[in-house]
Amino acid sequence: MNICYVNGKYLPKKDSKISIEDRGLNFSDSVYEVIAFKSKKILNYNRHLTRLERSLSSLKIKFPFSNVKTLELIIRNLINFNTLNNGFIYLQITRGTSVRNHLFPKLQKPNIIIVLYNSKSTHNFANGVKVITIQDMRWKRCDIKTTSLLANVLGKQTAEDKGVYESLQLNNSNDITEGTTSNVFFVVEDNLIQTYPSNNHILGGVTRDIVIDLAKKNNVKILEKPFNISNIKYIKEAFLTSTTVGVIPIIQIDKMVISDSQPGRVSKKMMTLFNANSKKQMNTINE
Amino acid sequence: MNICYVNGKYLPKKDSKISIEDRGLNFSDSVYEVIAFKSKKILNYNRHLTRLERSLSSLKIKFPFSNVKTLELIIRNLINFNTLNNGFIYLQITRGTSVRNHLFPKLQKPNIIIVLYNSKSTHNFANGVKVITIQDMRWKRCDIKTTSLLANVLGKQTAEDKGVYESLQLNNSNDITEGTTSNVFFVVEDNLIQTYPSNNHILGGVTRDIVIDLAKKNNVKILEKPFNISNIKYIKEAFLTSTTVGVIPIIQIDKMVISDSQPGRVSKKMMTLFNANSKKQMNTINE
Repeated sequence: MNICYVNGKYLPKKDSKISIEDRGLNFSDSVYEVIAFKSKKILNYNRHLTRLERSLSSLKIKFPFSNVKTLELIIRNLINFNTLNNGFIYLQITRGTSVRNHLFPKLQKPNIIIVLYNSKSTHNFANGVKVITIQDMRWKRCDIKTTSLLANVLGKQTAEDKGVYESLQLNNSNDITEGTTSNVFFVVEDNLIQTYPSNNHILGGVTRDIVIDLAKKNNVKILEKPFNISNIKYIKEAFLTSTTVGVIPIIQIDKMVISDSQPGRVSKKMMTLFNANSKKQMNTINE
Repeated sequence: MNICYVNGKYLPKKDSKISIEDRGLNFSDSVYEVIAFKSKKILNYNRHLTRLERSLSSLKIKFPFSNVKTLELIIRNLINFNTLNNGFIYLQITRGTSVRNHLFPKLQKPNIIIVLYNSKSTHNFANGVKVITIQDMRWKRCDIKTTSLLANVLGKQTAEDKGVYESLQLNNSNDITEGTTSNVFFVVEDNLIQTYPSNNHILGGVTRDIVIDLAKKNNVKILEKPFNISNIKYIKEAFLTSTTVGVIPIIQIDKMVISDSQPGRVSKKMMTLFNANSKKQMNTINE
């Protein structure tokens, strides 16, 4: 059984449908969040909620729940109805249904979709992954978590076609902004990690922010500054972060092998810190 | 009554729905066309079909009809079922429905949506419209007619909020690429029209191409070259083109009045030529 939530109703997935005049479908005029849950506990709920509210506000879509507790209750219901312990919550909010017109409809009634997914496959990312670099083809508001994701889809598929896990995106200055489904960090000195600053060219990832916080608390310095591909040969390690996979070491970028094809010391440290942080939340929140 | 077409079925609009796991909805992983019909005749069908096939091919989505005649038959049926004489056909093809994952699904079965709309309001565009300029926020594959349209939506709404019809988009070099729902032409000399060249930064509009053909056939020269905003004070006239509105004169750009707030001679000439061309098609095609 797979129960979804669509505009106030809990429905089997096969009956979970949306109007063909939905603005998310016609214009990618919508925002989303992917939130992890473990042992039925919702992880980093407040951080996701803050970003969701910022995304909605950037597009002038009103928060469509009476309050934040209502959304949390719906998610808890779905976790219970689907009898899942671990997985991901996919939440999408569109500007609503209206006769096709680029202009915002006069009366906006957002459409709300929530679907749960099982945890991803058992691929052992802890051993590290290979990545390639591609041109960053995206628009100039990557900071809003919208469903305008076609550039990301094409970039991720390019990685798959080349037999690697992810594509790192290069802007016009050949700085590496982020992956198509992840943020990227470079260990540039023994105790110094560099990553693209949080601005309109990247999505300020929830996992990215947690990793930055954890690094600082554990005496690892963070430099938020564009990293140029021309300096790639000098790095010691690199890793990716995302809600769905946590922290993953990178062992190869294009043809360059990183840290002898083994997850590096700092990457492993950040992975351990991140996993411990998730576990801590499982024991303390959502009671 | 409003009958739509969804994946092989003709349905009332209220029952025309798509899965919440449609990739058009989740990723804007889809393409579309808007095609005009007048006196039940489909205008410029072959040009739209050619562009549709190019869009699908760019995204590696296979053409989901057994042949081009099948699609034409479906459109004719919809025009008849809806007893409409004049209007627009909205056709959207998505990569299909699958469990959310950026990667293309192994088995792709595209979703197909077709909706008809009445002709737009009676606003008299022939008297000309005002426009503003904004930054071009879009991605780098504007040549593919995809539903990754959020930048266009926001740009069009910005125009509306400022009480004008359209926003012209400026790239990083301050060249004017195109409007959010239209192409733009500048009459730079008595008999010379300049417009942005057809490349990955603009959508090669069907109406744009027809206007260029008509100009050339009628001894008006066309220069396909980026037009820089710094030269705007030297232009004689300007006009917009799109499938839904045809040719519209521009009478003001930001604070600058164009051709004494009146549609200029060349703009009117192109409008007349375009309307005559549409009328000619109504009498000769789709018999």
